[in-house]
Amino acid sequence: MKLFSYWRSSAAWRVRIALSWKGIPHGTVPVHLIRAGGQQHSESYHEVNPQQRVPALEDEGRVYAQSLAIIEYLEEKHPEPPLLPVDFAGRAIVRQMALLVACEIHPLQNLAVLNYLRGPLAQGDGPVAEWVRHWIGQGFTALEELARRHGDGTRYLHGGAVSMADLCLVPMMYNARRHHLDIRPFPALAAIDAHLVTLPAFSTTRPEAQADAE
Amino acid sequence: MKLFSYWRSSAAWRVRIALSWKGIPHGTVPVHLIRAGGQQHSESYHEVNPQQRVPALEDEGRVYAQSLAIIEYLEEKHPEPPLLPVDFAGRAIVRQMALLVACEIHPLQNLAVLNYLRGPLAQGDGPVAEWVRHWIGQGFTALEELARRHGDGTRYLHGGAVSMADLCLVPMMYNARRHHLDIRPFPALAAIDAHLVTLPAFSTTRPEAQADAE
Repeated sequence: MKLFSYWRSSAAWRVRIALSWKGIPHGTVPVHLIRAGGQQHSESYHEVNPQQRVPALEDEGRVYAQSLAIIEYLEEKHPEPPLLPVDFAGRAIVRQMALLVACEIHPLQNLAVLNYLRGPLAQGDGPVAEWVRHWIGQGFTALEELARRHGDGTRYLHGGAVSMADLCLVPMMYNARRHHLDIRPFPALAAIDAHLVTLPAFSTTRPEAQADAE
Repeated sequence: MKLFSYWRSSAAWRVRIALSWKGIPHGTVPVHLIRAGGQQHSESYHEVNPQQRVPALEDEGRVYAQSLAIIEYLEEKHPEPPLLPVDFAGRAIVRQMALLVACEIHPLQNLAVLNYLRGPLAQGDGPVAEWVRHWIGQGFTALEELARRHGDGTRYLHGGAVSMADLCLVPMMYNARRHHLDIRPFPALAAIDAHLVTLPAFSTTRPEAQADAE
């Protein structure tokens, strides 16, 4: 397997955690999202992923994009150790939490969106930073409540094991700190994050540990 | 089962199609997203979904949110007729296409985001409409190419059967037209949409056919 990644992409980080958690051997191809206008817009990368974003995963000659689609693929092909519970209800809640981060928080802070806010919408750094914090804060408010309902509020978002939802939390908490969000209103999320980052699958895959980190 | 829905919500429409496609009996509870500041912000709905959005599905005393998490739940609990292919590769591509719509297009046009653009960012109707069309157009450009790679380009987004990806396409095509996007650059998507809307699971669940339609 070959992962197309960028060190600071939180969606790529989710997949790096999944590959590490499952112990799947793979190579990594760095795609620089900023240098020279962004390598993701090159002809050769367009063949890999017409959406021109990372991550993408190549396996057996095929390429898949969208981090959660890739993680579901890894879960089906390499079920152990699992990233989803066995019961229907638990699986639905884990996916709900993962999608809350992937669909409601992350899309509003990706590079293309921030560039559009600064460009066509003529927003300065202050309003853009406030925009990012607003959406992380709103999403985290709901996620904090879900974590209390469905987890122990100290180690994992759901139940007593690492799940797909945890893979989405840690990179988003990293982004929240980078964007100076006050995380004190989210004590369960902060505690879970603090526990998860002690696990090798999370710590060894962090942005600063990547070969393309700057 | 009980679906919390709003007639014009494209995420709710996806779930309505899934329930209809699988022939699952259910009740519908309309949640008016606009009237009186939005019923999704009420105390009683907060219990249902702390994220204060539709859709949500209640089943056996539990509630699930996030349309794709709900559809995966329905697929696991009621596998026939399927909304995912049987092979790992096909499932990954279908999920990639579904997530492309759910994570990259839809989050940028939901009600809360458009209100923020008009409010704190002080954008007028023109720039907001242009913003919506920009993100649908960018997402559709990638989806059009994926449809040509993985489908016949005339009836379904993937392979020769309805899938989870098609459930995301039709509501987004409806939104694209509502926002006056020129869809001529997307002939495959337009053809697939034209075919899908002839199927009862898609046509009977459309916004205008809902009891709460205005």
